[in-house]
Amino acid sequence: MKPPRKITALAGGVGASKLLLGLYGTMDPRDLTIIVNTGDDIILHGLKISPDLDIVTYTLAGVIDSAKGWGFRDETFHALKRLAAYGRANWFNLGDRDLATHIHRTALLAEGKTLSQAADSIRIALGVKSRILPMSDDPVPTIIDSNEGALHFQEYLVKRRAEPVVRGIRFVGVESARPAPGVLEAIASADRIIICPSNPLISIGPILAVPGIREQLQAHKQKVFAVCPIVAGKSLKGPSDKMLAQLGHAPTAIGIAKLYAPFTATFIIDPADKAQASAITALDMKVAVFPTVMKTLAQKRKLARALLSSSFPV
Amino acid sequence: MKPPRKITALAGGVGASKLLLGLYGTMDPRDLTIIVNTGDDIILHGLKISPDLDIVTYTLAGVIDSAKGWGFRDETFHALKRLAAYGRANWFNLGDRDLATHIHRTALLAEGKTLSQAADSIRIALGVKSRILPMSDDPVPTIIDSNEGALHFQEYLVKRRAEPVVRGIRFVGVESARPAPGVLEAIASADRIIICPSNPLISIGPILAVPGIREQLQAHKQKVFAVCPIVAGKSLKGPSDKMLAQLGHAPTAIGIAKLYAPFTATFIIDPADKAQASAITALDMKVAVFPTVMKTLAQKRKLARALLSSSFPV
Repeated sequence: MKPPRKITALAGGVGASKLLLGLYGTMDPRDLTIIVNTGDDIILHGLKISPDLDIVTYTLAGVIDSAKGWGFRDETFHALKRLAAYGRANWFNLGDRDLATHIHRTALLAEGKTLSQAADSIRIALGVKSRILPMSDDPVPTIIDSNEGALHFQEYLVKRRAEPVVRGIRFVGVESARPAPGVLEAIASADRIIICPSNPLISIGPILAVPGIREQLQAHKQKVFAVCPIVAGKSLKGPSDKMLAQLGHAPTAIGIAKLYAPFTATFIIDPADKAQASAITALDMKVAVFPTVMKTLAQKRKLARALLSSSFPV
Repeated sequence: MKPPRKITALAGGVGASKLLLGLYGTMDPRDLTIIVNTGDDIILHGLKISPDLDIVTYTLAGVIDSAKGWGFRDETFHALKRLAAYGRANWFNLGDRDLATHIHRTALLAEGKTLSQAADSIRIALGVKSRILPMSDDPVPTIIDSNEGALHFQEYLVKRRAEPVVRGIRFVGVESARPAPGVLEAIASADRIIICPSNPLISIGPILAVPGIREQLQAHKQKVFAVCPIVAGKSLKGPSDKMLAQLGHAPTAIGIAKLYAPFTATFIIDPADKAQASAITALDMKVAVFPTVMKTLAQKRKLARALLSSSFPV
């Protein structure tokens, strides 16, 4: 069997970017298409901010502040300080260089361009060779219903530091959202589809909720490999574990496997969770046990190489 | 006669700000109202930029880069460099702190606030005690008809460095523009009205062109003092001299005096131009000969004190 050449990845932000960076450095990046969550996009100070698109783009461009996981390296925050002095909200960090991205994107949208076109303009300017597609050009804001009321996801995550108790998640307007141009085709034409280790509820969840995408994955289920974002009952990144538990899902590899089983052929779990392998196999998925904790570039590339191997899982 | 207490000034940007800084430090700044040209406002990258409002505000707030005459002191330009990397125009300098002003103003306008309200929000946040009023809340872009075609004033001045030959000046939409709230009242209620040494064509000109303002000045002509922006045939600042000549006006004190005579009682010229005094008196204006070149703060305050004296001109 030939190794897979064309790869399509579904991604959120920070967690996904670790694996994407591994893939980007291991394969021909022009054969990589990334479908990115835009449910946590937000408009602040009149600017359209697409956090996951930017995290993925900055990561692959090599300009990201890798300690923070977002924003430009060596960033300054002079504008944000002044915005705060003008009485504007400053709970969402906006660096000076990062603001240029939001200004550019907002200006393109105001000129009638789509979010896809803006994302393409930005990734090309930053020298990223892979295609980066928003899940949809239509706004689909993720709203968290919580014990403090309805919060935009960024308010929940950044402003309220994921402290409110989650009672429900809504993707507003998703019923009428359409997959961005190229999304369904990228799933259909891929040799392998990789679901990155992102929050299943608010990173992968919004992508799946756009009408047509989940169905397309189901139609191409045999090509779908999902990397479990939970290791030993804890999120690799962010509040996935807490959110899963608050919404009645098990914050475990099995819990994620149940969510992904309808459209996933191969599920990758960390050796820490290998005891759950047989239960996951019972969900009618192959299980690959492989290190999924990616702190170093070597670890990212090792997982990427495994996912790019025709013999995986062995 | 009591010295004038309430002062209303008509102002462009850099040239006017020298005198305004003198006034601000010499009188009770709460008695100073400044009516500012907004003809050279421009929208760039979707952001509403009001250069003269900002220059006046930053100057009085003590945050201006006084070497440049615009922008914040110790400013950085990280966002602008990135905007350029995204293929956006970068001929108009936008500092990182300065961008916050434009973002804030644009957001306020998008929320339904007026330009006056935005200007007030910005000057209050920066601690400026004088009222700063745009000439109008309606956009009145200054277009320069030149040998290179029609150019927005900022394109003519900044992008093309005032090199094109000026054939005409238009304030687009001015026929239907209204003076901003408080403008006509500030002229009527002032003890003294000061026309700052700004470009008569593209700084004071747009203010005068807003229907009602010139008439209001004429009705209060006896209170109007105009500081000549030309000394010894040269602009104190900017391309006034060249523009005047290209449009058939004499780039001299007399040339300016002819433009201002219909609504000005007292005309202040520099000692360098005292030979023109009698010709200006013949235009039915009093002439005051007083140093108008303001390089130092002491010079700014000296002219301000003279303009605030009940016995001026002596």
